[in-house]
Amino acid sequence: MSTKKGLFLTFEGIEGAGKSSNVQYVKQLLEAAGKDVVVTREPGGTEVGEHIRNVLLDPDLPAMHSDTELLLMFASRAEHYQYKILPALQGGQWVLCDRFTDASYAYQGGGRSIDMERIRRLESWVLGDFKIDKTLLFDLPVAVGLSRAKARSAADRIEQEEASFFEKIRQCYLDRADAEATRFELIDAEQSIENVQQQLDKAVAVLLENAG
Amino acid sequence: MSTKKGLFLTFEGIEGAGKSSNVQYVKQLLEAAGKDVVVTREPGGTEVGEHIRNVLLDPDLPAMHSDTELLLMFASRAEHYQYKILPALQGGQWVLCDRFTDASYAYQGGGRSIDMERIRRLESWVLGDFKIDKTLLFDLPVAVGLSRAKARSAADRIEQEEASFFEKIRQCYLDRADAEATRFELIDAEQSIENVQQQLDKAVAVLLENAG
Ligand SMILES: Nc1ncnc2c1ncn2[C@@H]1O[C@H](COP(=O)(O)OP(=O)(O)OP(=O)(O)O)[C@@H](O)[C@H]1O
Ligand SMILES: Nc1ncnc2c1ncn2[C@@H]1O[C@H](COP(=O)(O)OP(=O)(O)OP(=O)(O)O)[C@@H](O)[C@H]1O
Ligand SMILES: [Mg+2]
Ligand SMILES: [Mg+2]
Repeated sequence: MSTKKGLFLTFEGIEGAGKSSNVQYVKQLLEAAGKDVVVTREPGGTEVGEHIRNVLLDPDLPAMHSDTELLLMFASRAEHYQYKILPALQGGQWVLCDRFTDASYAYQGGGRSIDMERIRRLESWVLGDFKIDKTLLFDLPVAVGLSRAKARSAADRIEQEEASFFEKIRQCYLDRADAEATRFELIDAEQSIENVQQQLDKAVAVLLENAG
Repeated sequence: MSTKKGLFLTFEGIEGAGKSSNVQYVKQLLEAAGKDVVVTREPGGTEVGEHIRNVLLDPDLPAMHSDTELLLMFASRAEHYQYKILPALQGGQWVLCDRFTDASYAYQGGGRSIDMERIRRLESWVLGDFKIDKTLLFDLPVAVGLSRAKARSAADRIEQEEASFFEKIRQCYLDRADAEATRFELIDAEQSIENVQQQLDKAVAVLLENAG
């Protein structure tokens, strides 16, 4: 990616961890430092991605095969990546993405037991050797995250899963952070909002320093 | 595929080559020999596949990235393969499929210049080491195929391409037949219907003999 100028940051963690709230906070920090920032999430507002999402979520359709599901998710990601993320980075913008491929590993791999190696092969097919610059992992006990998410809104299909499902996802995220310690920045998301923001202040300061 | 009992036959060739007409003829030959036969084509009548096809063909959508298109085609193929083709074969049926993965190589690879190696990686992700037992390649000059297709019905989006597009596709099919001479059976589709049927009589006789 020799033409890449902006940085690509992803926000990960279980339900209610604070990803969506804090993506806005980080955006402000970066803008205050003079960066041009884009916030996105999948399907990323591409029209084709929205249509694919409709197929994925259509409650009238029979259960699809897990391979079909994964291919559809990555089809939507390919569109998002090629037409939105990559052009923004090449134009010098910083891109903050609320969940990305780590979520596929955590939810489909960790949660639904799809073979991680098959996910990895599909990731490499779609993204080649594209690398995420930094992943902020909002980590907190499952019970705390779920109770925050419940207080916010009625439980959707995913949020109705048992706590053990989210334990597997949390663990998968932590394992990935262990394996790629340089890329991941662990945020203790159980703390107060003020405390979490202080952790983010520090992380962003380091990022800005390294980005020059 | 130790549990596979039926044989999987695919029908390939450019527009107007006679695939759809002759799939019915081969079905009759096999049924006369006591085989239980299923005829299918993609998206193969799976509900999810139909919805994916709608996204692929929706004229109101902006042009999608070629990676997205290929992932959607293989998502539909995964559903077709896992829920229709594989169960039929495992139940002892013979499956006749009007176009399959060779068409992705010929149209997206040969016609649209998508890297063949990337198609191969996606094929292997979706189908593993599943093997087509026999591919009947209906080969004929592009001009003959197109004039037959035109006589049959108004030209669709694909059929409006220039002749050179179909020349590339025909050549790609022939190259694949060269590279996998055992799997492919070349049918001279320029001949009269009676002559083509005689070629099919012979090919099916050999198939039945080998299948025991
Ligand atoms: N540190 C915190 N302490 C207490 N409440 C918080 C904290 N951070 C976020 N919240 C609240 O928890 C709820 C969930 O936060 P948010 O929507 O940002 O989580 P999320 O990780 O995006 O969840 P989801 O995965 O469901 O999108 C919101 O109501 C938010 O205001
Ligand atoms: N050997 C033949 N000689 C003359 N006409 C033929 C022959 N075989 C098929 N046809 C006619 O040519 C037309 C195209 O045949 P058919 O629909 O079977 O082709 P196809 O390969 O399925 O095309 P498509 O890719 O467009 O689906 C039909 O009208 C059919 O009756
Ligand atoms: Mg959120
Ligand atoms: Mg046909």
